[in-house]
Amino acid sequence: MKKRGDFTLPGEAGYEKLTLELAEKWGADMIRDSDGTQLSPELLQAGYGIYSTVCVIREHNEWARENRDKLQQTFLMAGPVTAEDDCVEIELLKDYFSQQFSVNTSPESLELWQVTDRTTEEILPREAWEYHEKTGCVSVKDVKKWHRYSVNFLAYRVWEEISMYNHITNHWDKEHLMQIDPRYEETQEYIFAWMRRWCESHPATKVVRFTSMFYNFVWIWGQSEENRNIFTDWGSYDFTVSPLALKLFEQKYHYALTAEDFINQGKLHVTHMPSGQKKKDWMEFVNDFVIGFGKQLIDIVHEYGKLAYVFYDDSWVGIEPYNGRFEEFGFDGIIKCVFSGYEVRMCAGVPVKSHEIRLHPYLFPVGLGGLPTFAKGGNPTLDAKKYWRNVRRALLRQPVDRIGLGGYLHLTQDYPDFCDYIEQAADEFREIKRLHESGKPYTLKARIAVLHSWGGMRPWTLSGHFHESDSHDLIHINEALAGMPVEVSFLDFQDVVDGKLKDFQIVINAGKAGDAWSGGEAWKDGRVVAELTRWVYEGGTFIGVNEPSATAGYDTYFRMAHILGIDKDMGERVNHGKWQGRDADGIEFCGLIPKGTSLPVNKEIYVYCEDTQVYLKEVGSVQYSVNYVGKGQGIYMSGFTFSPENNRLLLNTILSVCKESGKEAYLTENVNVESAYFPVADTLVFINNSPDVQQVSVQHKGQEVVEELQGFETRMIKLGADDSCR
Amino acid sequence: MKKRGDFTLPGEAGYEKLTLELAEKWGADMIRDSDGTQLSPELLQAGYGIYSTVCVIREHNEWARENRDKLQQTFLMAGPVTAEDDCVEIELLKDYFSQQFSVNTSPESLELWQVTDRTTEEILPREAWEYHEKTGCVSVKDVKKWHRYSVNFLAYRVWEEISMYNHITNHWDKEHLMQIDPRYEETQEYIFAWMRRWCESHPATKVVRFTSMFYNFVWIWGQSEENRNIFTDWGSYDFTVSPLALKLFEQKYHYALTAEDFINQGKLHVTHMPSGQKKKDWMEFVNDFVIGFGKQLIDIVHEYGKLAYVFYDDSWVGIEPYNGRFEEFGFDGIIKCVFSGYEVRMCAGVPVKSHEIRLHPYLFPVGLGGLPTFAKGGNPTLDAKKYWRNVRRALLRQPVDRIGLGGYLHLTQDYPDFCDYIEQAADEFREIKRLHESGKPYTLKARIAVLHSWGGMRPWTLSGHFHESDSHDLIHINEALAGMPVEVSFLDFQDVVDGKLKDFQIVINAGKAGDAWSGGEAWKDGRVVAELTRWVYEGGTFIGVNEPSATAGYDTYFRMAHILGIDKDMGERVNHGKWQGRDADGIEFCGLIPKGTSLPVNKEIYVYCEDTQVYLKEVGSVQYSVNYVGKGQGIYMSGFTFSPENNRLLLNTILSVCKESGKEAYLTENVNVESAYFPVADTLVFINNSPDVQQVSVQHKGQEVVEELQGFETRMIKLGADDSCR
Repeated sequence: MKKRGDFTLPGEAGYEKLTLELAEKWGADMIRDSDGTQLSPELLQAGYGIYSTVCVIREHNEWARENRDKLQQTFLMAGPVTAEDDCVEIELLKDYFSQQFSVNTSPESLELWQVTDRTTEEILPREAWEYHEKTGCVSVKDVKKWHRYSVNFLAYRVWEEISMYNHITNHWDKEHLMQIDPRYEETQEYIFAWMRRWCESHPATKVVRFTSMFYNFVWIWGQSEENRNIFTDWGSYDFTVSPLALKLFEQKYHYALTAEDFINQGKLHVTHMPSGQKKKDWMEFVNDFVIGFGKQLIDIVHEYGKLAYVFYDDSWVGIEPYNGRFEEFGFDGIIKCVFSGYEVRMCAGVPVKSHEIRLHPYLFPVGLGGLPTFAKGGNPTLDAKKYWRNVRRALLRQPVDRIGLGGYLHLTQDYPDFCDYIEQAADEFREIKRLHESGKPYTLKARIAVLHSWGGMRPWTLSGHFHESDSHDLIHINEALAGMPVEVSFLDFQDVVDGKLKDFQIVINAGKAGDAWSGGEAWKDGRVVAELTRWVYEGGTFIGVNEPSATAGYDTYFRMAHILGIDKDMGERVNHGKWQGRDADGIEFCGLIPKGTSLPVNKEIYVYCEDTQVYLKEVGSVQYSVNYVGKGQGIYMSGFTFSPENNRLLLNTILSVCKESGKEAYLTENVNVESAYFPVADTLVFINNSPDVQQVSVQHKGQEVVEELQGFETRMIKLGADDSCR
Repeated sequence: MKKRGDFTLPGEAGYEKLTLELAEKWGADMIRDSDGTQLSPELLQAGYGIYSTVCVIREHNEWARENRDKLQQTFLMAGPVTAEDDCVEIELLKDYFSQQFSVNTSPESLELWQVTDRTTEEILPREAWEYHEKTGCVSVKDVKKWHRYSVNFLAYRVWEEISMYNHITNHWDKEHLMQIDPRYEETQEYIFAWMRRWCESHPATKVVRFTSMFYNFVWIWGQSEENRNIFTDWGSYDFTVSPLALKLFEQKYHYALTAEDFINQGKLHVTHMPSGQKKKDWMEFVNDFVIGFGKQLIDIVHEYGKLAYVFYDDSWVGIEPYNGRFEEFGFDGIIKCVFSGYEVRMCAGVPVKSHEIRLHPYLFPVGLGGLPTFAKGGNPTLDAKKYWRNVRRALLRQPVDRIGLGGYLHLTQDYPDFCDYIEQAADEFREIKRLHESGKPYTLKARIAVLHSWGGMRPWTLSGHFHESDSHDLIHINEALAGMPVEVSFLDFQDVVDGKLKDFQIVINAGKAGDAWSGGEAWKDGRVVAELTRWVYEGGTFIGVNEPSATAGYDTYFRMAHILGIDKDMGERVNHGKWQGRDADGIEFCGLIPKGTSLPVNKEIYVYCEDTQVYLKEVGSVQYSVNYVGKGQGIYMSGFTFSPENNRLLLNTILSVCKESGKEAYLTENVNVESAYFPVADTLVFINNSPDVQQVSVQHKGQEVVEELQGFETRMIKLGADDSCR
């Protein structure tokens, strides 16, 4: 008996038969359109729920052409250019993709421009420079020879970035879409009217999917094909700026932001770095606007009896589903495109009724990484297996409500094994959802907090997809944790000061010195250090990875060195002797470190406390260590890369801290196979994360049960029964 | 006909026959005593010049016992200790070697102590703590719980460090020598009288070798054998401090130094880090004293018709042979113990009449690194060959006047091949000296400046011997340069501002961010950046190694990124696109990079300029690049380790910059063989730096001459003649 529902299928006009066949095969209950496809009347009337994508700020080119001063904007920096003479010419758009940007030369804009001597970081007076419309250059006179000068200026974005990306990647030949800025009242009025028209003209639509609200993540393209991607940040707010917004901000916050507050010496503000108060204020300001105007659009959708879902990607900036205000929008659901387990958790935890994940691969010829999918050289079935492997671990820990696909359905025609695999995955999804409905899976006692600058406002994710942030240890740790039988929370440094440590047995701080994940200057706050010290002395475990608690200016570079028992030498201790630490291989923590564990070697890490136990080390380097302090401990790992062995090391570490046995949680010895136990359903689920056959053995009713799993297999075992219920 | 002279032999009473035999074999003209040996009347009267070591501040234990308040001192830090309660006890000498230190509990000392909350870096008021003589502890009351507290205190050093080292390493069983501080007038009077007595009682002595003046480099030992070496720095001045000296300093400089100015959060002041003005003032203050008092002792030596030499090691602190004041002492010679080529150059350049190098291995059972030499398992002949290989390269570039050995001569008895090799090396030394007397060796046109914080005041060396600083790229570069046919100077950052770049074609800046060799905060001076920029645009070549010109707070992390064409991402650019650079393998610089070159991979280095030519790279990393700017260029190397191939890469780089051909300098293709050409003597010297047979070919009178060199061989070829003059 075929299980159905909880599946959103991308339909495609012209492929009605295929659409309905696959809807049946995959158990779809909803049919959607995608960016680039439409649904025909036949599909709209086939008895499925209809789900339509809207993007509020693009697809209005006619209005946009008449209101070029209401396009969205961004600050850009030109230069620095070295002054070889006593005047210097700086061409503003030289390095930027000319199809994306157009200089805003209005008087309100020019007021915001800044010319800076970057050699000394001095801002020049307005009289020192002139803009020449004809050449697109700023000329600066009486400069200091051999100093370097840059211009902060404001530019309109004249090609909506997602459209631009799809256009260029998939060789679209359509009109370039512009993006209008709802910050202006005229734009708002236009959008209100359009929204009503849209609802009226789409009576079949049950769910309106917003893609997403108004402002895209930052995506600045370069003119040269050799360096097309000048800046991409999924979590940054640069694309929300305009002279009007800056004026309104000043009225509300009683101080003005300058171009440099955004440009930041050309570095802009990467989400991976801690944000200052100005950036936090600006985010709050934008969030306030996005909620305020967004809610009015959602109300319109509701007026027409439709549901409003939001896509947690693309133009998500200003939505911030975890900042405590998300429910003000009134959304009925959220949809997240997922490559990884942590993205599932990120979607699943949003306070909204329906959580839906969009599986990969998308039905596109080429994937986001640029490699072929549904095209020569691609293997979409293997891709699907690997993505499902990532997603499945997280779904076992926390369920979502729906899954679905996106893109061009017709591309699946040549890939019947892909269609079969999606059928299997959809069935597995529904089965896992059913298990969760029976009751929560078994979870270890350890409550874990990940401590970083963004804390609970930006849980699970760092910034964007895994492959976009894989140079950071924490994304690997988050991905590992996403599928472990543990409870995970995310704290920021204020939470520590506010006494929230009491709820946790383990705190993880993982990052590079100065970044948002390690915490940077937050560690200068003695209250944070003292409170964590107290908490460890009283029994807590502080796990530091890479450069935890690092900040300059103190007796140790890692502020938690006295807890971790290790520190990093920034050159000030090259002539100091170093402790060797206690060599603990194979003594107490026999079995702690799985064979195949791989942690990086960093020669500047040294043993700070005499009694630090060093478990894995190369000469002159510490890779894993434990330091007992008071009733608690500090544990150091030199880095963390997601792998079956490293994941198990982390899990073993958690087990050892909490003095729990993996057996209670039906964890097996095989690092390639993970498990989840659902006590109410009395069902054990094994998942094989490897492409190869794997054997596991469990104790059940006093007997050893050996199971053999095929590559990537999901095996569900009803423990009360004699057989597995595959 | 045996050549003689320029050789100092360590004689040994009881081994008179051996002494005289080896003096004859090695061509010695002087016989010396050593620390631990004496010369007998027979040796004193054997017709050799006599050369006696004196150490002014030790070997006065009787006086020292009566004047314990005039022993030398140092600041130490105890703790930090975590406050688990509202008071905390800190045992001052807990971590320090109890035989080296004794707490100075005098009122003048206690006035200088500081108790600091290291969690917040706040110094506590004097009322907050008490010292308990009985327990050796400071107790601090009403502390902030879970903060960490430390004590800066003053301790006498009750065991002279060199004596302590030899004692413990060589299992001496003599009385522990104490070191008296000549800062006190009483000590000065005592030393004057002693110096006269000494001169009177040593009529046979021709050369008085001071070991060295008064203050040892810093060498703080720990109580635990697991971390005996708490701090060692050949260039630091911590061992010169006392309440009296601090008082005199304040009178002269009109500001007071505190304990923390020395302790620096427990880091002390490593020579490898840039020094602040306070440290510079203190060094000047000590230098002033050492010259003032030292000159009076040298005058006494001269009064007795003897020569005064100084040993450029051990208690050299305050001498600073390169600060422009060395000639004020009135020394007749300087002696440097050398492992490496750069140490030869360091000795050879001191403005004094006689330069002598003390060769390794010393005639000790165990070498400085702790491995056996003249003992089971040792191979002193191979050691001698390797050290001579290092020394010989530098001697070919700049001569010294004398060589010699030190230690226990009797240890050579079982090593006849060692005695033969020293005979050969002594002959080679005298031959090389003769070549220099004929005229200077051929030198490439390129004049090179090494730019760092210490500049010309601390040329060639970083701090101590090669093996003590081999984690720094610059010691490897200095060692490479020491034997190359180039002129090398050392500049500091003020020199750049003062216009000294005009004398140079190449500037090398090599170090880690923030250290003295990269320059740290000196790079915040826009004048330095602008002047170097000008100089490159006008034709100069800036070679940056590892983290050149690195400092935080600007648009690029490397302040010379616009010249180097590369920069380092400190996390602020993880989301920025990067240029790939021009792939230049094998195009223009064919032959630039020798096979076997090895440069480190650093993933955070990125191409900053579109046209940077990248010669060697792994994915995502730059190891060697060239960026043409104006008439000059920036060259980047990710690091530098001394090796035949890397040395040749550096030399090829210099040749390419100056558009010179190696052939002019008789450089051969074989990276293991170096050469020097002495034009006046028309003599070419090949040195084989490898233990293996090597072939080289040179063009001579239009003919290719192929030479085959034995392992480590020196081959001198008189070009006018038909045969080599081996």
